[in-house]
Amino acid sequence: MFEKKDQKQAGKSSELTALSELGEFGLIDRLTKNIQCFHPETLKGVGDDAAVIATGDKVMLLSTDLLVEGIHFDLTYMPLKHLGYKAAVVNISDIAAMNGIPLQMTVSIAVSSRFPVEALDDLYSGILAACEKYHVDLVGGDTSSSVKGLLISVTITGTARPEEVVYRSGTRSGDLLCVTGDLGSAYMGLLILEREKKVFQANPAMQPELSGFDYQIRRQLKPEARTDIRNVLMGAGIRPTAMIDISDGLASEILHLCKQSNTGCRLFEEKIPIDPQTRELALEYNIIPTITALSGGEDYELLFTVSQSDYEKIKDIEGITIIGHMTDNSGEKVMITPDGKQVELTAQGWNAWTKS
Amino acid sequence: MFEKKDQKQAGKSSELTALSELGEFGLIDRLTKNIQCFHPETLKGVGDDAAVIATGDKVMLLSTDLLVEGIHFDLTYMPLKHLGYKAAVVNISDIAAMNGIPLQMTVSIAVSSRFPVEALDDLYSGILAACEKYHVDLVGGDTSSSVKGLLISVTITGTARPEEVVYRSGTRSGDLLCVTGDLGSAYMGLLILEREKKVFQANPAMQPELSGFDYQIRRQLKPEARTDIRNVLMGAGIRPTAMIDISDGLASEILHLCKQSNTGCRLFEEKIPIDPQTRELALEYNIIPTITALSGGEDYELLFTVSQSDYEKIKDIEGITIIGHMTDNSGEKVMITPDGKQVELTAQGWNAWTKS
Repeated sequence: MFEKKDQKQAGKSSELTALSELGEFGLIDRLTKNIQCFHPETLKGVGDDAAVIATGDKVMLLSTDLLVEGIHFDLTYMPLKHLGYKAAVVNISDIAAMNGIPLQMTVSIAVSSRFPVEALDDLYSGILAACEKYHVDLVGGDTSSSVKGLLISVTITGTARPEEVVYRSGTRSGDLLCVTGDLGSAYMGLLILEREKKVFQANPAMQPELSGFDYQIRRQLKPEARTDIRNVLMGAGIRPTAMIDISDGLASEILHLCKQSNTGCRLFEEKIPIDPQTRELALEYNIIPTITALSGGEDYELLFTVSQSDYEKIKDIEGITIIGHMTDNSGEKVMITPDGKQVELTAQGWNAWTKS
Repeated sequence: MFEKKDQKQAGKSSELTALSELGEFGLIDRLTKNIQCFHPETLKGVGDDAAVIATGDKVMLLSTDLLVEGIHFDLTYMPLKHLGYKAAVVNISDIAAMNGIPLQMTVSIAVSSRFPVEALDDLYSGILAACEKYHVDLVGGDTSSSVKGLLISVTITGTARPEEVVYRSGTRSGDLLCVTGDLGSAYMGLLILEREKKVFQANPAMQPELSGFDYQIRRQLKPEARTDIRNVLMGAGIRPTAMIDISDGLASEILHLCKQSNTGCRLFEEKIPIDPQTRELALEYNIIPTITALSGGEDYELLFTVSQSDYEKIKDIEGITIIGHMTDNSGEKVMITPDGKQVELTAQGWNAWTKS
């Protein structure tokens, strides 16, 4: 108590560690390593897309996500209604990634007085639009002022039968690695919006050039959650062995599956589904198209593995692509390029604290 | 998209409404009035200390709270370990206010890069200390950078049998109004800390004068949740008819009970339990002691009502005080002073946005 802020937060000892040294995943590992659970109903705590809690003959899934202005979104080009929709969707996606059905949501916002009430009306109309589309009940929240900017914290519940829940840790050597939809477009949408923002800032009279990029911009500003995949796979008689949603980029999510399942992985570059226009756009921006998928993030597609014996069942399902397979060599997490080279997969590991 | 920030957030139309015009409760009413629930399992959504969700033969309780640096806490005098403890406790208190048992918690933090990792270690050690004391499992969360300061968003689950859940809306005319513990000390603790902060800022070599005010400072920095009251009342054969925790001050919470139960209330000033030293301190600060209880907040005691027929069962329970009774005149929410005057109860309505 009553130390100078710099003493407490920076210079008290030479042993202090900057947040940027650890990065987000390192920080989470460090903060959560001493957690002790008391209730046998807590089937899975920290470490997956959602916690899993026994409640009678079903399980409850519980997940939470923060969206911070200036870090996760930029109100220059993100309409508040879209922001509300996206804040809900990224949470719904976490329940889809557990193979569950989303049910209830709480939304807390901290907001500075520069926002009028009507701005929050817009934000909530987007949240409620997502709730209506995905049949989620908004059941609570908290509102507060903030010293600066807007922050949204969403928590979601979901349900599933215990045997339906799919963890990150269930994949085995030989399992097929699959992905829904296509990847990289949300990232290209972000780059387009950032480019037009610079043009707009230089000259506010200039109209932004967004036409023709509807798909990429929609993927960035109004993503959807793949709650449909649960039924698609169930209908085909397939139960994924592991699953995760793609929020940080394909490489990062594959590495999560490998780490938690203790497997390796061989990913085939030419199999990665990328929208043709996104591919062209990436080249225009001097970006290798594969990078938009591997490191771009925010596509909110599902990455999952299925047993090799399910190959016949899954190979022709529209909108699902087999992109590789898991191996028993947990030291080898590689992408095979079209000319047969092996590239080690690394998570670009979006390190939020190096930016601020 | 691509409007100037001021256009979007302030001056687009003369019809825009400042957040300070509505205040927190007005804003919540406005944002939540269009909510539609889709699932019959959602027994109670927005509007109580926690949402109530049917899960088999039990209900799940769900509540969430935000704590924002510069709004809810001041790191000049709030040690991070205490802050973590308090962030957990204010949520646990919401489950206690529903007459439930806390079970799981998620904790999300947004933090600027000025904080070293060790600061977050301290914060989490406080969160985990509360989790251990109250047997709550920390099952998830999110970490993010922030543009400025520290923000903590906690969501908690709890459980109860359906018939045990106590809502704000259940009180009836004639019911006795009761409170646990004593009120106002957390607020006096805050005033002492604020005073010493000013002294410290004027001259950092001065040691703050905190000795002798242990109780008030502990109430402010390390509050506890009254999870014990559930068993106390159950043991006495009493089921409260309505309950709420005291986070915003006694007057505000009483008005919540009245509004949601559609009753009036008569509160007797001389019955309000205030610690004698807190009373003295208030007078030293030229504050009417009753005001610290009515408007101070953050005591995290429970306010509840019981049927008049439970009078004999409750009157001698240590640590519970009968402070008034409910009436059928919903237009009359009054405090009776010792000399018999009637004072209308008004919520000071802590309006966060007028401060920023």
